[in-house]
Formats: sequence, structure tokens, C-alpha cells
Amino acid sequence: MTAPATSTTAPTEAPATYQPTERTVPTRSADRAHYDRETVHAILDEAYVCHLGFVRDGAPVVLPTLYGRVGETLYLHGSTGSRPLRSSAADPGLPVCVTVTHVDGLVLAKSAFHHSINYRSVVIHGIARTVTDEAERRSALDALVDHVVPGRAADSRPANAKELAATAVIRLDLAEVSAKIRTGGPNDDPADLSLPHWSGVVPVAQTYGAPVPAADLAPGIATPDYLAAL
Amino acid sequence: MTAPATSTTAPTEAPATYQPTERTVPTRSADRAHYDRETVHAILDEAYVCHLGFVRDGAPVVLPTLYGRVGETLYLHGSTGSRPLRSSAADPGLPVCVTVTHVDGLVLAKSAFHHSINYRSVVIHGIARTVTDEAERRSALDALVDHVVPGRAADSRPANAKELAATAVIRLDLAEVSAKIRTGGPNDDPADLSLPHWSGVVPVAQTYGAPVPAADLAPGIATPDYLAAL
Repeated sequence: MTAPATSTTAPTEAPATYQPTERTVPTRSADRAHYDRETVHAILDEAYVCHLGFVRDGAPVVLPTLYGRVGETLYLHGSTGSRPLRSSAADPGLPVCVTVTHVDGLVLAKSAFHHSINYRSVVIHGIARTVTDEAERRSALDALVDHVVPGRAADSRPANAKELAATAVIRLDLAEVSAKIRTGGPNDDPADLSLPHWSGVVPVAQTYGAPVPAADLAPGIATPDYLAAL
Repeated sequence: MTAPATSTTAPTEAPATYQPTERTVPTRSADRAHYDRETVHAILDEAYVCHLGFVRDGAPVVLPTLYGRVGETLYLHGSTGSRPLRSSAADPGLPVCVTVTHVDGLVLAKSAFHHSINYRSVVIHGIARTVTDEAERRSALDALVDHVVPGRAADSRPANAKELAATAVIRLDLAEVSAKIRTGGPNDDPADLSLPHWSGVVPVAQTYGAPVPAADLAPGIATPDYLAAL
């Protein structure tokens, strides 16, 4: 049997953009939508908490939770007893929507109508499935810790057998994904520009305070260098 | 017929706490749950964006959106053409879950397992309904603007008839509500305390930059005092 013709081509690389779908094309402000992986990854990697949406008894539930990213996979974790994680274990998985949002500025326009927020958000639709492979579970848990502080997984005690048994890990492929970004100043109507109200943007940013050692931290353990990068 | 005995008591005030329900009692970390209105209101009033969850074609959707609060009512708005806002207009309204989260700190434990985030979140379950009363619509839009910057609604041009016609306002009563809060340092196992890893908390806060005037702002309009309060 001869090899299929495609076997002579180079290996397929992941395309640079996510394919838009009916669910990821916004009904308005379509110019704010982005589908390139680089933009999506940057927004995901900068946030700490995502909002996990799922359906329970026909009604929506939205919970904040930590996450980690490895390539084109998002990992979430939780107690094996938690509701969404139990549902993910069932075939065919749990339909979810995961959303991550950064607030970058308060946009004050001359008109109440044009007030807005500068933001960057990512919305992921897909099916969450429980991870059962032990190696993937361990690398997912490392990714979750390193998502909080890059480099931290290697500087902490890995999960032991009891902790692993208590922890459920679920995965969500980054496939049906979009980012939405608003930047810049207010979009006032020309007729409003002569009004006496101030207009502009108040920048908003997430900032870090000096690390606070735990009350039970033994003396002589210095603040690690990787925290200085924050 | 004599009046019932309760008629001689003082008028019923809103109780100081929300009544927990099966949906608002967490399956784990129940000690982090709070139901008092003061705590819930403070968390809601400090954030800019909520995550609105609803069900579309049987699947969850989670979108970031602005909101305002008036007493025990949350108001959201959007284009009259947007999907959740159209659904809210239909009887009997749209089942939603609205979640607001603040990240207050990165919690680094000796063990990977006990890494966490200090956070404050509010989860609201309920039915979103379109507001049709014009006076309530106007006060809701004022609340949305004042939520971004208190005092700003009075210092901007109110919505005109065309803008009002393009804007849908939905309301969600604060009834089935809970807050969840984590504070403090890592909860390491005693057996881990002798490990050489640093442990503690990196505080995270939202901060504001100096206001940036719009490019089309006429000279001579000073930055308003209410921005100094941010």
C-alpha cells in the first residue's frame, strides 16, 4: 500500500489564528474581536482567575477559579467532590464557557451613552473533560502553580499520593476561542464635543505589594528572585 | 375580623443577610461563604466588570459586562440587539448567574497543593428581566455610569431619545446571593514547615494611573475633583 499523498508534505503546524464560529463572532463591536493565538495566549497568561460557566439543572452557574495553560490546552482543577468537576468526569464531558477579563481603563465620555471600559477578554467555548493520565495530571498541576508565579512549581513540594487522589483536573482545548479588546479614548459624537464635561481615560492596572512572609516561615529563608519579576 | 397579631409589630425591614439556598452553599470551604448584605454590596460596588452567565442553545455563555447597583437590584445594559438582552425581554425572563471577583493576593505555600489566591467574590443567581419603565431605565443608566465613577452621571450628557431606544436595560434582584472570601497566609501542613521553600503572600491590588484627557477635549476643562477620589 502506497503512502497517502499528504505524507510527503511538511507536518501541519497549528494555524496562527482560531477559526471564528457563530458563537465567537460578536453581534456588535465586531472590530474589537481578535482570533490570533498570540493575543489570546497573552490575555490568558496575564490573569489569575477565570470565570467558569456551566449548566446545572438547566440554569447557568459562573464560578471564579484558577487555571493553567499548556500550549493549546487550558487546565482547571478542584476537589474531586466539586460539582463541575464531577460532571466533567461523565461521558461526554461538560459543556463549559471560560472567560478571562482584564480591566485596563475607565473611559469617560461627554455623553453618558459613550461611557465605557478599556478591557481585554478571552472567551473559550468547549467541552471540559477529566484528565486521567497521571503524567498529564502532574504537568497540569505544575502549570496551575506556575501560572500564579512562573518558576514556583519547581520551588515547592509536589503533590503527594493523597493530595493527587483528592484533586480532579479537567482540560479544555483552545479551539473555539475569541479575544475582545477595547483601547483608546472615548468615542464621543462630534455634536457633544463642545459640552463642558471633562472626557478621557483613567488607566487601571493590577499592581503587586511587597511579599509578606508567612507567620510560620522559618527565619533565614529569603524572598525568592522569581517574585522580583512581578 | 380582628387584625392578625403581627399587624401591631413594626414594618418588616430587609433582613441583614441573604437566605442561603442549595445553590449558594458551597460544597467545600464553607467557612469562606458570607451572606450579609454589607459584605456583598461592598464587593459588588468595588468592581467594574461582572461575568454574566446564561444558557444559549443548551450551552453556557459567560460574558464580561458593566453593571450598576441600586439597593437590592443589579442593573445591566447593552444593545437591544444583543443575545442575552433579547432573551431577557421574553416572558419569563432569562435565568442568569452573575459573578464578580477581586484578586487580593497570591498565596505561596510550601506545598504545591496549598497554593491559592486571596480573593473576594459574589455569585448571584436569578432571573434577569427587561426594564420597561422609563424612570427606572433612566435611574439604572445613571447607576451604571456612577458605578464607573461615582458622581459622573450628573457631569455628562444624559441619554437622548435615540440612545435610549438603542439601549436595553435588564434587572436582577439580589435575593439568591452569596459572597466567598479567602484572606490570610498559606495553610501549610505542619509536616511541611521545615521545607526550605519561601512561603507567604504577594498582595495584589487594582490601582489607577493619572487621568489622560481625550485627544478631542477642548483646552481649559480641568480634571474633575471626583476623579481624585479614585
